[in-house]
Amino acid sequence: MYRTNSCGELRISDVNKEVVLSGWVQRSRELGGMTFIDLRDRYGITQLVFDMETNKDLCLKARSLNREYVIQVKGKVAERSNKNLNIPTGEIEIIVTELNILNASEIPPFTIISDTDGGDELRMKYRYLDLRREPLKNNIILRHRMSQETRKYLDNQGFLEIETPVLIKSTPEGARDFVVPSRMNPGEFYALPQSPQTFKQILMVAGYDKYFQIVKCFRDEDLRADRQPEFTQIDCEMSFVTQDDILNTFEGLIRHLFKTVKGIEFPGIFERMPYQEALEHYGCDKPDLRFGMKITELTATAKGKGFTIFDNAGYIGGICAKGCGEYSRKQLDELTEFVKKPQIGAKGLIYVKLQDDGTIKSSVDKFYAAEDLLRWAGQCHAEKGDLLLILSGEKYHTLNALNELRLEMGNRLGLRDKNIYKPLWVVDFPLLEWDEETQRFYAKHHPFTSPKPEDTDKLDTNPGEVRANAYDLVINGVEIGGGSIRIHNKELQQTMFKVLGFTAEEAERQFGFLMNAFRYGAPPHGGIAFGLDRLVSIFAGLDSIRDVIAFPKNNTGRDMMIDTPSVISQEQLKELSLKIEPNPKS
Amino acid sequence: MYRTNSCGELRISDVNKEVVLSGWVQRSRELGGMTFIDLRDRYGITQLVFDMETNKDLCLKARSLNREYVIQVKGKVAERSNKNLNIPTGEIEIIVTELNILNASEIPPFTIISDTDGGDELRMKYRYLDLRREPLKNNIILRHRMSQETRKYLDNQGFLEIETPVLIKSTPEGARDFVVPSRMNPGEFYALPQSPQTFKQILMVAGYDKYFQIVKCFRDEDLRADRQPEFTQIDCEMSFVTQDDILNTFEGLIRHLFKTVKGIEFPGIFERMPYQEALEHYGCDKPDLRFGMKITELTATAKGKGFTIFDNAGYIGGICAKGCGEYSRKQLDELTEFVKKPQIGAKGLIYVKLQDDGTIKSSVDKFYAAEDLLRWAGQCHAEKGDLLLILSGEKYHTLNALNELRLEMGNRLGLRDKNIYKPLWVVDFPLLEWDEETQRFYAKHHPFTSPKPEDTDKLDTNPGEVRANAYDLVINGVEIGGGSIRIHNKELQQTMFKVLGFTAEEAERQFGFLMNAFRYGAPPHGGIAFGLDRLVSIFAGLDSIRDVIAFPKNNTGRDMMIDTPSVISQEQLKELSLKIEPNPKS
Repeated sequence: MYRTNSCGELRISDVNKEVVLSGWVQRSRELGGMTFIDLRDRYGITQLVFDMETNKDLCLKARSLNREYVIQVKGKVAERSNKNLNIPTGEIEIIVTELNILNASEIPPFTIISDTDGGDELRMKYRYLDLRREPLKNNIILRHRMSQETRKYLDNQGFLEIETPVLIKSTPEGARDFVVPSRMNPGEFYALPQSPQTFKQILMVAGYDKYFQIVKCFRDEDLRADRQPEFTQIDCEMSFVTQDDILNTFEGLIRHLFKTVKGIEFPGIFERMPYQEALEHYGCDKPDLRFGMKITELTATAKGKGFTIFDNAGYIGGICAKGCGEYSRKQLDELTEFVKKPQIGAKGLIYVKLQDDGTIKSSVDKFYAAEDLLRWAGQCHAEKGDLLLILSGEKYHTLNALNELRLEMGNRLGLRDKNIYKPLWVVDFPLLEWDEETQRFYAKHHPFTSPKPEDTDKLDTNPGEVRANAYDLVINGVEIGGGSIRIHNKELQQTMFKVLGFTAEEAERQFGFLMNAFRYGAPPHGGIAFGLDRLVSIFAGLDSIRDVIAFPKNNTGRDMMIDTPSVISQEQLKELSLKIEPNPKS
Repeated sequence: MYRTNSCGELRISDVNKEVVLSGWVQRSRELGGMTFIDLRDRYGITQLVFDMETNKDLCLKARSLNREYVIQVKGKVAERSNKNLNIPTGEIEIIVTELNILNASEIPPFTIISDTDGGDELRMKYRYLDLRREPLKNNIILRHRMSQETRKYLDNQGFLEIETPVLIKSTPEGARDFVVPSRMNPGEFYALPQSPQTFKQILMVAGYDKYFQIVKCFRDEDLRADRQPEFTQIDCEMSFVTQDDILNTFEGLIRHLFKTVKGIEFPGIFERMPYQEALEHYGCDKPDLRFGMKITELTATAKGKGFTIFDNAGYIGGICAKGCGEYSRKQLDELTEFVKKPQIGAKGLIYVKLQDDGTIKSSVDKFYAAEDLLRWAGQCHAEKGDLLLILSGEKYHTLNALNELRLEMGNRLGLRDKNIYKPLWVVDFPLLEWDEETQRFYAKHHPFTSPKPEDTDKLDTNPGEVRANAYDLVINGVEIGGGSIRIHNKELQQTMFKVLGFTAEEAERQFGFLMNAFRYGAPPHGGIAFGLDRLVSIFAGLDSIRDVIAFPKNNTGRDMMIDTPSVISQEQLKELSLKIEPNPKS
């Protein structure tokens, strides 16, 4: 037996017990004739004591240990004279009588402490050492807890977890697929699922009215800082439900997670905000509701007074930054630089300072009388001491820039507290989105989302105006889940593919199996999928998903620890009937 | 709201309640002026009643429905005069007042009943219809239940479920990998995991001393009848444990599953049988212990009496088939044909019949006196009325044939009852297996399995005799799980790779990350993995895993429903820097 107890378990009530512990040497220090070692495992740290006077050989052996050695000790639990009340085991220590070195360790390339000195690259390469650190360990445990509680809740609600295949069919709609060559079918490929979407719909047709799965999904995208080629979804689908049934069920899931994992309960139901309202008031479809600072449209009041920039703008809008009326030139310049960054793309920033002394100062006071500026202030609910920040231009472009500016001001004013959670359902998304570049409509959500019944007849006449029973769950400005009521009728699905520019043959080749299934009694159905990585990172108070994943890949999709992707043998390529042919352009 | 209740929910105590139900038309029949419809959903069947007299239009509408139509009805629960006590809802029916057709259905290509008329191909193609059938539905629910109970048990034992990557590195050891070309790294590939083996060991190095995962694994093998290219493992690993700790922990898991899912409790601990004993007594490493009929070696007593076949045999062994002493010529011929099948490969079968009248009849009574035959009978514990079946030849080849013969006799005698479960741990597997064809050792389990400490020094001198702390869990002759104590020392791992014929460079390139990890304090560890598909099929009393998988692939690795693998576009191939080059041999 390697141990009787873990390193996080023993308490003052265990004093005098004979115990065996195993773990890693966290640190070691000498004090007079005594040697103290902090022994670490997943469960905590326990102090070991060795005494030169009572057992010199043993103490010398203890002194020979380096950090991260794996050892086993036998000894007696004793009360500490110098208690450490910061850790649960801090009232006791182990008077060691036997020490067994289970494995040595070289000096790690970075220190295994919460605030490590290891850079990103080094931490990724030695992930097994990084994962020993307290913050990462807590993330992994949190993720486990959330997965288990998700299953518990859904199981209790009568959902069945059903595994869908990983080797499926490549379909060009949506993001790029990862593909898998089939050796047994030369020249043919499987694809890895971007989501189990069609399979879960098939399960609804098959009569499994409540399905879920915590499942890996795959997207071969050029990776941004916080994307991973493989990621995990809580994937769910229900039959015989309306949008309200789905929102209520999964609001219940999120409440259950917050309550059981973080001890947080939300009063009332989650706010539900139409997509259009989110755009107009927050400039985006995932508003951070931890703070107000809503966008106010000023087009009607600000136009036509001779200020050319505003007069030529399709839209003028502003936000009120409370208590920033005394912002300095430098601070305002910073904000102007911020909105002019290429990814935001505003031409400039107009401000109105409602200074503490009652005077008004604005970058446009040449063009507008004080009462004009006061009228804007009134519209924006600004008072003495506040700052109005105004942008203008094409409507949705400007709203987008105002969203960025609002979030920046939220950060500057400390209004985005990671310990506060504001969930929100955004509803009534448009069904389609026009793409200027390719001159065609794309599905805003995906091609299986149903138009709202009252909008269906606009599919032919005015597709851009058709709304969907589609919804996103947003927490603190982060989209953590989304879904929709689906099409369950073959003809409507065919129409949808047509609107999306599929020929009948393409639609049939790619999704014929689904439309076929709709011919044999498909029930009305809908669902949702949550990004587990994102959800865990929000619970952990992290901005990135990387450290809630045990073995993440870097921005070029590479696993630094196992050093892959990598070349395979000529033999393997031959078996797969493949040849590498570098693209001349790349 | 689509329904107030499911179709399996209403009872006599619900009489007079107004309810709304949704579901599929299972069948419909007319009786005088009445129409009865069985409405089906996942939860059961409820009888609907329509009456020409009270509501002609509604009744006519009901009569227009075909099988598998999806409908919604509103009505009142009433007591049935003609009760069906075979189903839980059989005491009530719904007097329907409103009928709403949610979706029509064409006539399905096979009938949705337990004993369907659909062939395998048709059922695979229309899997969504097949999955509506009661037996498949019960398998899917069983699988869900077993997955949830597995998680519950392991979570309670302090295990963490940790997701390991699906896009990993290709390593030629073991079965063939499925590979995934990397677009961002032209000419390089990921591989899909055959198991998370190295990652779970890395997690042990990282200090996560109890890990599990229910996880998809992949093998690109030529498929036999009951293999799937993707399959699911319950994958587990523990640190600071001995073999006994692991056997006890996971015997606990299996007990928990039998108890909670099937209500079966096993007295005492599971039998533990050394590999060599399993071979000698049952001719295989996965004995079916539902019946005895052990193999008895007769070499010493049967050799040297002038019967050339036995005299030239390295091994002679027999089994005793109780009560078969009166087997006919035809029956014995059938058995002879059976053992002579190429996949068994015996040259012939010797029998000794201990007939009911006390006489002995044998195919070798020319060569042996009655007392010789009686001595064999005694060794095999055969009595009057029994039949001895004897094979001879090379030892392990003959044992293997005796195993097949024993199982065949078990089937003939009805000794392999699907409702009886006999679990068994097979232990002390050899570490290595010599392959005549390639003239090298292969790892019997995998290259990470540790030799038994007392056998380690034989690694250089006599590798074939080294035993491992490796174990399999066998139930009713089916291997449902296996594992081992692992190597946790870099040097020993290097030695192992050398014994397996890896050059130091190959070992480093493929598994350098693991051996590197062992340099920084790797704890002693070991683990096990169970085949979930197999485990569920055993619980379901099925011989095949196909019908415990929602969307299985056929024997050529094809998903018949979505018709994949399939060709991908030239554009996709170009992006991946790949060209299809048919193998001239294929």
